[in-house]
Amino acid sequence: MNYGLPLLQALIDHFKKLPGVGEKTARRLAFSILDMDSGEVREFAETLLQVRKTIGFCTRCGNLAEGEVCGICRDERRLGGILCVVERPADLYVLEGSGQYRGRYHVLHGVLSPLDGVGPGDLNLEGLERRVQEEGIQEVIVATNPSLEGDTTSLYIAKLLKKYGIKVTRPARGLPLGSSLEYVDRGTITKALEGREPI
Amino acid sequence: MNYGLPLLQALIDHFKKLPGVGEKTARRLAFSILDMDSGEVREFAETLLQVRKTIGFCTRCGNLAEGEVCGICRDERRLGGILCVVERPADLYVLEGSGQYRGRYHVLHGVLSPLDGVGPGDLNLEGLERRVQEEGIQEVIVATNPSLEGDTTSLYIAKLLKKYGIKVTRPARGLPLGSSLEYVDRGTITKALEGREPI
Repeated sequence: MNYGLPLLQALIDHFKKLPGVGEKTARRLAFSILDMDSGEVREFAETLLQVRKTIGFCTRCGNLAEGEVCGICRDERRLGGILCVVERPADLYVLEGSGQYRGRYHVLHGVLSPLDGVGPGDLNLEGLERRVQEEGIQEVIVATNPSLEGDTTSLYIAKLLKKYGIKVTRPARGLPLGSSLEYVDRGTITKALEGREPI
Repeated sequence: MNYGLPLLQALIDHFKKLPGVGEKTARRLAFSILDMDSGEVREFAETLLQVRKTIGFCTRCGNLAEGEVCGICRDERRLGGILCVVERPADLYVLEGSGQYRGRYHVLHGVLSPLDGVGPGDLNLEGLERRVQEEGIQEVIVATNPSLEGDTTSLYIAKLLKKYGIKVTRPARGLPLGSSLEYVDRGTITKALEGREPI
């Protein structure tokens, strides 16, 4: 669609690069910018720049950090001795949201995926081994996604850490709460039956 | 959710102000910015600023314009003698997308809505009357949304223009009621323009 407005088209194209945003959504978002207060748009643009410039990765766990070390690693109230391994920072925040886990994290920044050329050397695994030794870790929960790649990665990590004689676990597989059996896939049903618990 | 990252939270809050973007989507979009090339983020931010600064309204028809007069008003190949009235610039581009209409437009920037305190004085109606007289308009197609407010507005415009003895039409009721022009497919738009009826 030719708007005769190259700038607006450029903005639509930028929005289209965001995940899950197609042509129509991008157009709607771009038009909404025109209706916004110009001060608000300036703040939005500056925040975008600042975020990209300022936020890096925690040198200890790989989480997002505005400085050298992230807020969770700096937090003295966190339980020592336990680590939760996740694929990406976004996963970490989902786990945090549950409020159930009080230890620290370790972010892999990916999963093993030979087809995409991602091997162990591409993941933040060296740091994990070092931390297990230096921080006196007793248990590592591998919370990679319950996918083929995630499971492969969790098996790899379990093997890698075997020599340290610590507990390596993963979150239970089963029926998601609030779901309906009718819509749950076979794999999940199988896992849920295998892991059945006494009531 | 406390990320311990005020900047990231600020970015999430900015995304949440966009239409149709909730907490989860905003989070996903904000995280995607962290994965982007920093040059790309800079361009995105600059385009946002430029769009808001540069794009204003056409002094003739009320459409979006990067200068005084929009591309459609400047386009000499456009049919004279016919105007299509729309609520907002976004609607205009949907009509343009159908490729069926070759005349010029007139953007009201709203609809009559007594409950929201929007009266005739708040719409770009004076400009419409002036154009009808000065540009020798023979027909005005009132393509307001097929909603209560849109229909009220089209009736008001038909009355307003009655004294000029010109044809005032509206697109056929091929448009699904209660919808918004912005989301209607091209085929329906085409049908609706072909079957326009006197008000």
